[in-house]
Order: sequence, then structure tokens, then C-alpha cells
Amino acid sequence: MDNHSDIVIIGGGPAAMITALTARRYYPEKSITMIKNKAADIIPCGIPYMFHSLEHPAQNAMSSDGLSKNNIAVVIDEAKKIDRETHQVTTAQDEVYPYEKLVLAIGSVPIIPPIGGIDLEGIYPIEKDLEYIQDMVKNVKEAENVLIVGGGFIGVELADEITSLADVRVHLVEMLPHLLAHSFDTEYAQMVEEKLESRGVQIYTNTGVQEFSSDGNGKTAHLADGTDIPIDYAILGIGARPNTDLAEQAGLSLFDGSGIWVDEYMRTTDPDIFAVGDCAVKRDFFTREKAPVMLASTATAEARIAGANLYKLKVVRENKGTIAIYSTYVDGLVLGSAGLTEHTATAKGFEVKVGTAHCVDKHPGVLPDTHQCQVKMIFSRNSEIIMGGQVAGGSSACEMINTIGGAIQQRTSRSEFETMQMATHPFITAAPTQYPLVIAAQNANS
Amino acid sequence: MDNHSDIVIIGGGPAAMITALTARRYYPEKSITMIKNKAADIIPCGIPYMFHSLEHPAQNAMSSDGLSKNNIAVVIDEAKKIDRETHQVTTAQDEVYPYEKLVLAIGSVPIIPPIGGIDLEGIYPIEKDLEYIQDMVKNVKEAENVLIVGGGFIGVELADEITSLADVRVHLVEMLPHLLAHSFDTEYAQMVEEKLESRGVQIYTNTGVQEFSSDGNGKTAHLADGTDIPIDYAILGIGARPNTDLAEQAGLSLFDGSGIWVDEYMRTTDPDIFAVGDCAVKRDFFTREKAPVMLASTATAEARIAGANLYKLKVVRENKGTIAIYSTYVDGLVLGSAGLTEHTATAKGFEVKVGTAHCVDKHPGVLPDTHQCQVKMIFSRNSEIIMGGQVAGGSSACEMINTIGGAIQQRTSRSEFETMQMATHPFITAAPTQYPLVIAAQNANS
Repeated sequence: MDNHSDIVIIGGGPAAMITALTARRYYPEKSITMIKNKAADIIPCGIPYMFHSLEHPAQNAMSSDGLSKNNIAVVIDEAKKIDRETHQVTTAQDEVYPYEKLVLAIGSVPIIPPIGGIDLEGIYPIEKDLEYIQDMVKNVKEAENVLIVGGGFIGVELADEITSLADVRVHLVEMLPHLLAHSFDTEYAQMVEEKLESRGVQIYTNTGVQEFSSDGNGKTAHLADGTDIPIDYAILGIGARPNTDLAEQAGLSLFDGSGIWVDEYMRTTDPDIFAVGDCAVKRDFFTREKAPVMLASTATAEARIAGANLYKLKVVRENKGTIAIYSTYVDGLVLGSAGLTEHTATAKGFEVKVGTAHCVDKHPGVLPDTHQCQVKMIFSRNSEIIMGGQVAGGSSACEMINTIGGAIQQRTSRSEFETMQMATHPFITAAPTQYPLVIAAQNANS
Repeated sequence: MDNHSDIVIIGGGPAAMITALTARRYYPEKSITMIKNKAADIIPCGIPYMFHSLEHPAQNAMSSDGLSKNNIAVVIDEAKKIDRETHQVTTAQDEVYPYEKLVLAIGSVPIIPPIGGIDLEGIYPIEKDLEYIQDMVKNVKEAENVLIVGGGFIGVELADEITSLADVRVHLVEMLPHLLAHSFDTEYAQMVEEKLESRGVQIYTNTGVQEFSSDGNGKTAHLADGTDIPIDYAILGIGARPNTDLAEQAGLSLFDGSGIWVDEYMRTTDPDIFAVGDCAVKRDFFTREKAPVMLASTATAEARIAGANLYKLKVVRENKGTIAIYSTYVDGLVLGSAGLTEHTATAKGFEVKVGTAHCVDKHPGVLPDTHQCQVKMIFSRNSEIIMGGQVAGGSSACEMINTIGGAIQQRTSRSEFETMQMATHPFITAAPTQYPLVIAAQNANS
């Protein structure tokens, strides 16, 4: 069997898929093979919604129609070894795949804390695998008490979804003083906390699980603050680490001990091997430090850069780094964050000026389905460029954070926001007199 | 009576109000007086919604709470004459108001076409006056056949609202081949036309009203193409011209025969007199030609520039011009446009490359309340900067056009869109693999 392919991509998630599709667009004459270790991949950010909002968990399966349409070969197998000398990948099934260019899109591995009882039946990390999550959903739906460990995005979204299930009581534990603390300042995190609490979620902050135990009456989670929580099922959402095993075996460099080192064009220390998505190191837009960002949206941006630049540097990327841009949805409340929070910016030594604005997302605010909306913008005190923003509101808040995100990437100044031209409409935005990005920018100047 | 005020602003709409509030912020020690000719101003872009969506038309009144709270005096009177020599404004009530700095925010005057029967009872232009519109609403609600002349934003939005009233048949006449033709390319205009037609609006394009007549059986509108439409009431929405009488009397220059000439800081040819909003000329961002844009959002941006820069140039404005950024809402369909359309760009001699994208605004698309979404982006073929964009979709489309608008104002390149970082979330945006601003930018490169 001739396994030769010009471009070999290891992985099956959004990063792998977009690398393949982008490579096809820029290098139509090249053959492309994806080696992925499971047949059914799922949309990573849709995982929480497999528990309630989607009628069937399988609706969150990732379509691979685009691959066959674009003449991209798919092999279900597990890559085991890279031989850089001979330019070959060997798989679990002992097949050998030669390559000209290799892309690692091998994702991340859930972090399992080394605590007592972590191996008990019914305590599981999140794996991006359809059957695995389908089993989880089934078990959670039969549970009375579900514990979620970790109050980041996945923990918050799971709590919101699972509390919608009848007869399931949700407990959410977070080590930091607030939920979503890496992405939002306290006043925004509190909105999420109030929302979840009003929905019946029991939140424990400033503490963590010290041990799980089990006896004839069932399982218990023992928290560091002395609280005991009876649980039927626990989901670990405390994060993941870059999957770097294959890269390390091949002698590729990591960055600062974790994450495959890549340059601006997603090239590893081997010019014929690229890495994209969760397995590749992310560096912050402002500090250039390692940034703990693992998002499909970041991964797809990287995949587009890699796919276009495999053979020639076709799409020039400015030296930018990740801006850590997120949005989330909690029972109708939309929150977005981009760039640095006020807390993080200050902790990193930046001198900032901050402005906020409150408005309604229609005008006049008596129109049906009007939501409160609030915006916070963080600027460099001296150089006055935008460094971060947070938004809370109705459904339009999601694209508003993208306006801020675009502005961060373009290094937009505060006075440009003050004089910005924007579209407004009674049914769908704040009034032009109240447009929150303008008002917050003005208010920052005090 | 001492009428002295450091800053005098003539007008009562959004431009006047935001100039006053911005001046208060930047010049806390100055006294400010607004001279406006009616007590109750209304939110201009809310006018269509006084016909149906708002329970009471008066809900669209503009609040002036902010003025008294900010120690801004309001005089209900009509400015009649400016004496630049003595720095004084004289009003209809023969009061004299001295000023150091004067701001003209005197708006626009509806265009009344010189055709037969235009003076008949029941044929009215739109005036930004609460009582006047309340009367219109009352009459329209009693009518059987309502004709709207002009298929721009106000005409389209009025048609959508009025067709929601039981027993009212709406006719909409537009001279150009399509509705909204100045702001959208044909494929977007057609979406609006289909939407309105499905709601029972009768659309007549490529024609205009030649004459109105009246006999014992009622009124008729005679179109240039020979069609006769029986009407009870007609609304003229064919546009407005800058209100420049006061400026001309005072010897201020106009630009190219219409609109008060202003520099980048909204200063007229008299350094102590500023003009903002519809009365001031607008120049296109790309062509620097006169641009027929009359929008509250543009007016408020100008007002912020004028208010900040009355005494000292405090907020630097780059030499930008108007990008003509709009959004509208037709029965759940949101459309946005920013910058030049493909049609206009080409007509003005720009060589462009165009990319489009189609997606759904949630992921997976089986989530409740998923809308189709489409984007068109127009780039300079050679210099590759973004020159325009159009969006159609659900409620998030409104802020998506603002992301494009921000990018135009920052002269963002196509490859920066290709590698942009954006926030995505299953409930509120397209999938990161399908994000339409990225895909359209990629597709433009062909």
C-alpha cells in the first residue's frame, strides 16, 4: 500500500480540519492525509450542550463532509512515532506514512489532580470523544448530586446545562475567589455567580477537593474548607495540558517546559513540522509570556496560518500572540472577554486606565426583549491603546466583544473609540448617544 | 435678563445633546445653553417604531434628564440670526444670546418633490416632531391604502411596521432598481424585498410618483410607469437636505452648494462656530466626495469631536470622513452595511476583490433560534485593505457590522482578517471553523 502524502496532519479536531482545508486552498496540487485516532470527533465548545440543550448528544458530532469534498484522505489510526530523518510517521497499526510537511494538531490531555479517591467510579475528566461524552450524559441524567470541579468556562457552562435537568443538584467548586477569574474581573464574575445560584447551583469558591471517598452510602467529596458534599458523579473541568509526547519523542523543543515551541508561522524547531491548536504553545499578545489559552477559535486561527504557509510564507502574520478572546452564555446572559483583565494587566505591571458603560441593547429601552448591557474597557494609561475589554448583555454582546478584539489586534487608541462611527438601530443596538464602546472609552479618561 | 453663555448650541436632536454633554465633560467651568425650537424631541431612528412596535408613540420621546443633571440650560425658542461680529444669536422671541463658541446642530429639511398634487391633504413628509408623528400614526392607523415614497432605510422600516397594522395595505415606490440601493448590493437588497413582499407590501421599483390627484372617490398616486395606486395617505421618505439657512445668512461657507463646510474638527469657516450632524457636510472616507449620509450615529460621533474641541484641540481626529455605516431590521432579518458597496466602489473607479461567506449563527446549527447568516467583504484589489462590508442574519449581525466598521476605520488588511482571533460560542456565534469574516476574507483572494 502506498501511503505517500505530501502533507500529513496528525489530529482530528478543528485545528487539524482547518489546517487541511487551508492547505488544500493554497496548495491545490499537494496530496493531504489526516491521521486521526477516532472516527467521530465532536465540536469541543459544544460539549456542555450535549447534556441538555441538544436533543441528542450526537448532534454535536463534527461533520467531515468538507474533507472528502476537498480530496483530503482520512486514516483512522494512532500516530506513534515521527522519524524526522526519513520524514515518516509510524502508527499503532504499524503503517508508515512518509511526508514532505507534517502538522501536529494533537490537542491536549485533561489534567487529573493527584488526590485520594480520584480513581473512584463516577469521577471523570472531559474527553473530546462522542461515545465517552454520551456515556457521561447518560450517567449525569441518572444522578442526584453532580459535582463539577473547576469554575472556568467549561465548568460554568456545564453547571448551567446540568442544573436544567430535573432532579439533578449541581455543586461547583473553584479554587480561586471567583468563577471565570482568569477572563473576567470580579464584577463580571459575580454576574455569572448570581445567575448560577439563582438557578440552584451550589457554588464553593476559595476551596478545592482534597479527597474523594466512598462507603456503603455512596461517594463524598471532601473540600479543603471542611465541607463534605455527597455526590453520585463528578466531572473534572480543571484544565488540560498540551499533548506533547509525540513531539518530545521526535526531539522537538517545547516552550518553557510545556507546549510545542512554534514561531509566528506555527513552525516547530524542525522546518518541515508545524504544530497548531492546544498542543502548540500560546504567547500573550501584550506580555509575550506563555498564555494558558486552549480554544477552538485560537486553534482555527493558527491552523489558517499554518495551512497557508506550509511550503511558502504566503500569509504574513504580524508578531501578535494570543489575545485570549472568549464568549460564554449562562441562561440568557452573554459575557465576552478579550485581552487582559484589569486585574491581570495590573498584576503584570501595566499601568492602566479603565472606563465602564451601562446601557440597554435597544432604544428606546421599552422595546420587547431589551437587555441590560455593560462594557468595561482597559487602556494603557500612558500609550492609550486598548489592552482589554469585557462585555455582558444580550445576544449581541458576542459580536461586540469581537469588535473589541479586532481593535486590540489593530492596537486602536482610546481617542479612536471616542470618535468611532458605528451602526445603531432601535431593535438591535444601544442608542448612538449611549453606545457603550464610545462611552466607556470616554469614561476611561478621568 | 442675562442670556450670556460661554457655549451656545442651536438644536435639540442627538447631535445637539451629545455636543452639550461632551462639552460639559471637557470644559466643566463653561456655561452651556441649548436653544431648541420644540419642547419634545424624538429619537430619530425610532420614528418607524412609533407606528406599531411601541405601545405609545410618546415612548420614543428623547429624554433630556442628562441635560439638567449636567447643568446645561435649555431654552425653547427659535434661533433666527447669528451676528458673528458681536458673537450673538437672536431668536424669534427677540432674545439675544451672546456666545464665545457657537454650535449649529440644526439638522435637515425633508425634500418635497415638485410634483402635481403634492399639497393634497394626507401627503406628508417626515418631521422629527412628537405631535406631528403622533398625528401621522393616528391617520395611518385609520387608512386602508398607505403609499410610502422612497425605498431607503426609513421607507423600508416604515413599510415593515405599517404592514403589521391590521387592514392597512402598504405600497412602496422607489426610483432605483432596488430598495436600499445606496447601502447594499443587489443580492442583499433582494432579501429585504422578498421579506417585505412576503409580508404583503406592494413594491414598485424603477419608477416614481408623477402626480397625485383627488376626486370624489379619493386620492390616487400616478406612477411614471402608468400604474395608478389608490391611496388614503402618503408618506414622503425620499430624503432630506442639510438645513443651512442660518449659516448662509451668517456668511458661512457651504461645501459644494449644500451642507455647511466643516474641517476635521467640525469647525466652520468661522473659528468660533462649529456645525455637527445633518446640517454639516459629510465626506466619504475613501473618495473624500460629499456623502449623502444623515444618521444619528454619524451625528453623535461628530458631536463628540466638536464638544471636546471647542476651545482647544483635545481629541485628535485622523483625517477620516464618513464610512456610512448602517443597520436595519425587517421582520427579524438584520442587515448591516459599512463603507462602500461593490457597486459604488466599482462605479467610483476602485479596483476591488470581493469575498462572501454563508453560515449559521449558532453551532451546531440545530440549536434553537438558529439564523442563516451571510457576509460580503470588499477589499482593494491591489492594496488589500477593507473598503466595505455587508451582513445579513439574526440579531448578532448588528454588532458584526460594527466589527467591520472598526476594521475599515483602522484600514485593516485582508490577511489580518484571514488570521483574526475572534470569540465564538455555540449559542451565539458561527463555529470558529466557519466564522464568516474570516471565510469571506479568504474567499476574496481568488
